[in-house]
Amino acid sequence: MRLVVVAGSTRTAAIDGISAAGADADALLHTPGADLEILHYGGPVESPVVPVSPTGCPTPAVVTRAVRDHVGFAVTAVDAGLARPTGAPTVDVGAEPGGDIREPDPVPDAQRLFERARSLAAGLPDDEVAIAETVPGGTTTALGVLTALGERPAVSSSLPENPLPRKRRVVEEALQSSDLEPGDAAGDPLAAVRQAGDPVLAAVAGLVVGATETGTRVRLAGGTQLAAAAALARHAGVDAAVSLETTSFVADDDSAAVHDLADDLDLTLRATDPGFEQRDHPATNAYVAGEAKEGVGMGGALAMAARDGVSMTTVRETVVELVDDLLAARAAGELQP
Amino acid sequence: MRLVVVAGSTRTAAIDGISAAGADADALLHTPGADLEILHYGGPVESPVVPVSPTGCPTPAVVTRAVRDHVGFAVTAVDAGLARPTGAPTVDVGAEPGGDIREPDPVPDAQRLFERARSLAAGLPDDEVAIAETVPGGTTTALGVLTALGERPAVSSSLPENPLPRKRRVVEEALQSSDLEPGDAAGDPLAAVRQAGDPVLAAVAGLVVGATETGTRVRLAGGTQLAAAAALARHAGVDAAVSLETTSFVADDDSAAVHDLADDLDLTLRATDPGFEQRDHPATNAYVAGEAKEGVGMGGALAMAARDGVSMTTVRETVVELVDDLLAARAAGELQP
Repeated sequence: MRLVVVAGSTRTAAIDGISAAGADADALLHTPGADLEILHYGGPVESPVVPVSPTGCPTPAVVTRAVRDHVGFAVTAVDAGLARPTGAPTVDVGAEPGGDIREPDPVPDAQRLFERARSLAAGLPDDEVAIAETVPGGTTTALGVLTALGERPAVSSSLPENPLPRKRRVVEEALQSSDLEPGDAAGDPLAAVRQAGDPVLAAVAGLVVGATETGTRVRLAGGTQLAAAAALARHAGVDAAVSLETTSFVADDDSAAVHDLADDLDLTLRATDPGFEQRDHPATNAYVAGEAKEGVGMGGALAMAARDGVSMTTVRETVVELVDDLLAARAAGELQP
Repeated sequence: MRLVVVAGSTRTAAIDGISAAGADADALLHTPGADLEILHYGGPVESPVVPVSPTGCPTPAVVTRAVRDHVGFAVTAVDAGLARPTGAPTVDVGAEPGGDIREPDPVPDAQRLFERARSLAAGLPDDEVAIAETVPGGTTTALGVLTALGERPAVSSSLPENPLPRKRRVVEEALQSSDLEPGDAAGDPLAAVRQAGDPVLAAVAGLVVGATETGTRVRLAGGTQLAAAAALARHAGVDAAVSLETTSFVADDDSAAVHDLADDLDLTLRATDPGFEQRDHPATNAYVAGEAKEGVGMGGALAMAARDGVSMTTVRETVVELVDDLLAARAAGELQP
């Protein structure tokens, strides 16, 4: 199995109260690159930040990496608009960081990105791929895309209390700035992602289209952001079977309504529970308290672990070890907080 | 074990009769990217060329990939001046393609590249790394660097008949264009690589310096190009133990004098013989006839296979399968020749 992780940024993330994926605005910009370094190397290599929140909540990249240590799947990272350099290897699709969706045209190169990702996916040698994302602020742009397409406007959050009303106001402004009403972009996914989305969604949608049209099975490894990408692919005419593999934290989040979204979009939903309540550690406790929930392929990785017979006890212990290593390195001054 | 493959280009490769790494000048530009795709995916994904020569000689990337199928080492690719896009993930160090060394200043950003690679290597979590290259024309720039440093001016070739006199004339012009005499850059490796080298050599030298100064053991996976990078590192003051793991084809090439070079530079030389004369196939026969010889970490990969107890029979059969798959894909029109 290959996990394709699409990493990027949107200036939408800088809006107050939108994202928990970083201690401050600057850290947010480094998070996706740090995630890729954790996936590829096991820890940050060039990233000046360690994505572990002040409460001790680690980036979900740690969970995906923990599973990788046991399952050994291939990872292909795609740079779909990183705002800061990363020491991780990425496929360059020529993307720029996405703009704030409250301004017109936040993803002006959406079509080129979509086509580039489609062509990349069409060339993959795999029978099956998992596709994931890392983009702070991405649930708000996902909400933008779902709204523009006329799909169920419900998304999850990396915060314990989903700031949905705030996200909805941002999306309202986004649609206004492009003279769109909800549903106006139905059947026109490129307009939806260009006016109300982010470059990661454009690339993921292109990957889904390119993979399915060449007979590669697609597992979407994530929650509502991946569902929004699936919506783009459905509106682009994809009718192949697609599954959505997420975490129990997203599945149990009533504000996100991921079950209904999956039904609407004809996605086979699988939610995997890592049993974090069985391990008392700041990292696992933070997820139990509703922080982070999903991202960087966490739900898909947990599903791979389950399919491969790797126990969740093993996954949890590896997560705790990786987090302790990250925090020790940070404390030793090798990495800044 | 991690294999770091540094890929790039130099316009020096376009000089008539210098390189065999591509059917024509345009194919040459695509070869390093195709090599990275073969390493990462098992075959070309976006590359329009399949690096198998008209005689049936495959790029050594196929051998490295064949070993990887059995040993499973991590690969980190670095883009040190690719001239064409690749579908493989690469660490971006902001490099530009290298210029023709007969013109002044072929690697103007040598110092920045060196420092960027040094910083990347210093951050690696590994106890040990293997470092490799893919850059058509790279033996000529290696000769340029060795000559500028005052080291033994001997390099190997991807052609059965090493066009050493031609390379020496090119290097003579290179030094003249920079007002350098042989040996003038002794102790000044950045001047040597900037005036007579290529961006890959600058990055590899930076990696060696960064790795050794943080206690990471270095195995150079290659032949005389890696020896030239080692010379740069030695002239930068590196006195750590470094090994040079190459193929029997380079070790048996008297024109290359790799044993003497290794002695001069205090490198522990290991040459591994894949026993290609025991398998009658155009791919293996081409190597026995002296084509290609080394590159993309081939010698280092063969050494890893030997250390891991993977038999050369297994390696040979996997090489033949991969080459047959590549040629079948090309014949089916999925890939252009």
